[in-house]
Amino acid sequence: MDPFGILYTDLYQLTMGQVYFRLGLHERPALFEAFYRKNPDYGAHQAGYTVFAGLDPLLSWMEGARFGEEEVAALRALRGRGGQPLFAEDYLRYLKGMGGFSGLTLRALPEGRVAHPQVPLVSAEGPLLQAQLLETALLNRLTYETLVATKASRVREAAGEAVVLEFGLRRAPAKGGEAATRASLIGGADRSSAVSLSHLLGLPSSGTHAHSLVQAFLALGYSEEEAFQAFAEVFPDDTILLLDTVDTLGSGLPHAIRVFERLRRRGHRPVGVRIDSGDLAYLAIQVARELDRAGFPEVLIVLSGDLDELVIWQIKSQILEEAPRYGVDAERLLKRLVYGVGTKMVVSWGHPALGGVYKLVAVRENGAWAPAMKISDSLEKVLNPGHKKAYRVYDKRGLATADLLAAFDEAVREDEALTLRHPTDPAKRRTLRPGEFTLEPLLEEVYRGRRLFPPLPLEVLQERRRRDVERLDPGVRRLVNPHLYHVSLTERLFALKGELAARMERG
Amino acid sequence: MDPFGILYTDLYQLTMGQVYFRLGLHERPALFEAFYRKNPDYGAHQAGYTVFAGLDPLLSWMEGARFGEEEVAALRALRGRGGQPLFAEDYLRYLKGMGGFSGLTLRALPEGRVAHPQVPLVSAEGPLLQAQLLETALLNRLTYETLVATKASRVREAAGEAVVLEFGLRRAPAKGGEAATRASLIGGADRSSAVSLSHLLGLPSSGTHAHSLVQAFLALGYSEEEAFQAFAEVFPDDTILLLDTVDTLGSGLPHAIRVFERLRRRGHRPVGVRIDSGDLAYLAIQVARELDRAGFPEVLIVLSGDLDELVIWQIKSQILEEAPRYGVDAERLLKRLVYGVGTKMVVSWGHPALGGVYKLVAVRENGAWAPAMKISDSLEKVLNPGHKKAYRVYDKRGLATADLLAAFDEAVREDEALTLRHPTDPAKRRTLRPGEFTLEPLLEEVYRGRRLFPPLPLEVLQERRRRDVERLDPGVRRLVNPHLYHVSLTERLFALKGELAARMERG
Repeated sequence: MDPFGILYTDLYQLTMGQVYFRLGLHERPALFEAFYRKNPDYGAHQAGYTVFAGLDPLLSWMEGARFGEEEVAALRALRGRGGQPLFAEDYLRYLKGMGGFSGLTLRALPEGRVAHPQVPLVSAEGPLLQAQLLETALLNRLTYETLVATKASRVREAAGEAVVLEFGLRRAPAKGGEAATRASLIGGADRSSAVSLSHLLGLPSSGTHAHSLVQAFLALGYSEEEAFQAFAEVFPDDTILLLDTVDTLGSGLPHAIRVFERLRRRGHRPVGVRIDSGDLAYLAIQVARELDRAGFPEVLIVLSGDLDELVIWQIKSQILEEAPRYGVDAERLLKRLVYGVGTKMVVSWGHPALGGVYKLVAVRENGAWAPAMKISDSLEKVLNPGHKKAYRVYDKRGLATADLLAAFDEAVREDEALTLRHPTDPAKRRTLRPGEFTLEPLLEEVYRGRRLFPPLPLEVLQERRRRDVERLDPGVRRLVNPHLYHVSLTERLFALKGELAARMERG
Repeated sequence: MDPFGILYTDLYQLTMGQVYFRLGLHERPALFEAFYRKNPDYGAHQAGYTVFAGLDPLLSWMEGARFGEEEVAALRALRGRGGQPLFAEDYLRYLKGMGGFSGLTLRALPEGRVAHPQVPLVSAEGPLLQAQLLETALLNRLTYETLVATKASRVREAAGEAVVLEFGLRRAPAKGGEAATRASLIGGADRSSAVSLSHLLGLPSSGTHAHSLVQAFLALGYSEEEAFQAFAEVFPDDTILLLDTVDTLGSGLPHAIRVFERLRRRGHRPVGVRIDSGDLAYLAIQVARELDRAGFPEVLIVLSGDLDELVIWQIKSQILEEAPRYGVDAERLLKRLVYGVGTKMVVSWGHPALGGVYKLVAVRENGAWAPAMKISDSLEKVLNPGHKKAYRVYDKRGLATADLLAAFDEAVREDEALTLRHPTDPAKRRTLRPGEFTLEPLLEEVYRGRRLFPPLPLEVLQERRRRDVERLDPGVRRLVNPHLYHVSLTERLFALKGELAARMERG
């Protein structure tokens, strides 16, 4: 049986399914929404937004997932505490006939776009059993990729125009490395070192060499320079040499420069050096100075070794401060840097899980959507109820000023005054006048029994992210203590929420 | 192309491979060791040991991984900066002919065993190219599973004899959920909610129901009690009811008790209740008291909601303190608790990546192993050089007192005095007299061109962990500020390391 098939789910989805089936509720139209509660907080720094990723793999999975012979046999084998089969034959027959998610319609935020807490990333509408069954796989795919794409977007913000390489596969969570690489590339990395994953995403993979190359040569009685020379002879137009196996400035750098000089004499252009340990900013300055002196001002300097957005920020700050002291042009140095980022990006160090949830918000009853809430929650966690839609509100500068949730059948117009309500605090509101704002609907239909468009090229998703990040207020983009981006409700949705909460409390 | 095939690796493994190939070094026997540098530090709490996991999936992968048509075509398509093919045809032909890892021999710590920093988890011996190529996949599989198994072992320690269920699939890293579930079960979870993964591991999956069941009923105009009743009728011998959708004590509990009473009258035994939010310890006490009063002293109480080892510890402490105040027998209550642990276990919250490394330690030269070191490292990071073996040293009580690294061809005996050297500090040593200690070799051969034994049942790995944890000093098992477990060198290895470091510094 495929471990990643339709049974890549929690058992309780299937037990609940049998309850619905037994009561004839399994095909009752239901509406679930997926969202997350809070932006990642890495401790010393915090995200002011996320980048939505993982949708495409989810849609492909949905199209292929179904109850086949093996899946039904596995379910048939499950026993209850009394030794009786947990699942009845008529239910299993139904699942087999149902196939997979043929009855569902999904509306989603386009993948790669900037997302905010509480705003639906996906709404799933369809038969209660199918919509319930989707929960585990949906959260499994969307929350991890969104988390990593968010971290990558922050790394990209810190790196500015510099190239960012994703080097994380070895520390990625087993087969989750596939999603980690994809999300890193959506979020802001330019290339990945992962060969098969890059290939399947239509990109070339990227890399240099490891310390082991130099170590092997040394152990065999050769020198570091001979190791470098060997690499340069095999890859004369793609030579990037790792400087810190022996001593970055005392050995690696002079050896590399000699090898580069030989390459140049033979008409080749050396590409770069890499530094993987030590005081990276200081070493980069010294290396840049020596490379400049030797006539290699265009050789790239790849930095790696436990980098994240704050370390990159620190490296750049230190270079801006210290480079002039050594006669090195700081701006020019920053432009030749390349960042190799691994572990901390692919595990979202500091905040390794996004609190994504998938909640029932309405069930169809007598031709209308009956809203669902979970009453025990604190006010902060109370669902925004019922069938909804979402807009992004832009100000006159074209910057996003809020996301707005509205009832699905509500008219929200640019040519009327628009009041944005705080989701819980009745005292907080803001009214925008016509001409002061524009509205953009956020969710689009992506699945109706099957996916509605083929997988998009990575560049489309990267471009979406870039455009959306550019339209954020700089305060929201800050790496530390970002501004709080507003997620608001329309008057009507706010009133519905209050009414429903009151009704539930009474009854 | 299979994303998880032999190209589930970093590009630089293959570029280095081409350098070795061009120089005729690709089949030179080499020896790499995988180990990790430090135990996980979760911030407020720290691990005193790890649980080694991920070996079996790695061995299976190695046996299947090979350069087929698709892999070679993908490599052939890669271009250098000059537009020329990155890899030469003769090299690609060699890779294709080589197949996969047929030349490697792996010695490893048996999976499921307790592990310590710096001690080899795996040594890989064989042709330099193959041994180098293994790096990425090996670290990818071993470090994540070891990390999660370690967290699970800590959860198990906190939970004591109580049942622990792994509920983490929705927050697990995409397809990495497969490894997360396996590692959780090796490390100490009893069951998982993941259906396909449990099935493939030969276990039944486990679960209750979600809030959405109650919400759906409420939205349709039914009551919480009717939702519970519906569940109980479909699963009369497997009823576990989630109490906190509306109000745990004011609604969920009395409704559950009424449903349980009806079950009892019909001759069934209700199984449990689940609480997923609020002050879990307080609620568990109140729920236990009411269940006792209603004559259900054996109904289990499942606790869930962002649990980790410290939260479980806190819940137990609070119950021991507060239960008597409400006339509830604390010890009996603890025995009926079940912990559902998800997110924080499967992402190893607080320390989401293990610093695993895979280092070249020796290359074969003139019929002997020439040791390799990386010279630039700080003393703390300097490799323990050369071909080695590892022992666990037990004291007279049968408790593990140290792990010991020795040269591979060194005689280490129980009938002679044994001196344990600190890995870097020459002043720190300890000598054990014969009769005071026993030695256990730690590494066993697991792969020689193919795996040497079939996948082991999960219970074997679980039993290994249990036995090893029991033989740790209680101070090393502590959840907070554990004792430092000693990892030592023999006199001979210590001398070799010093000599090599001196030689490298000179030249």
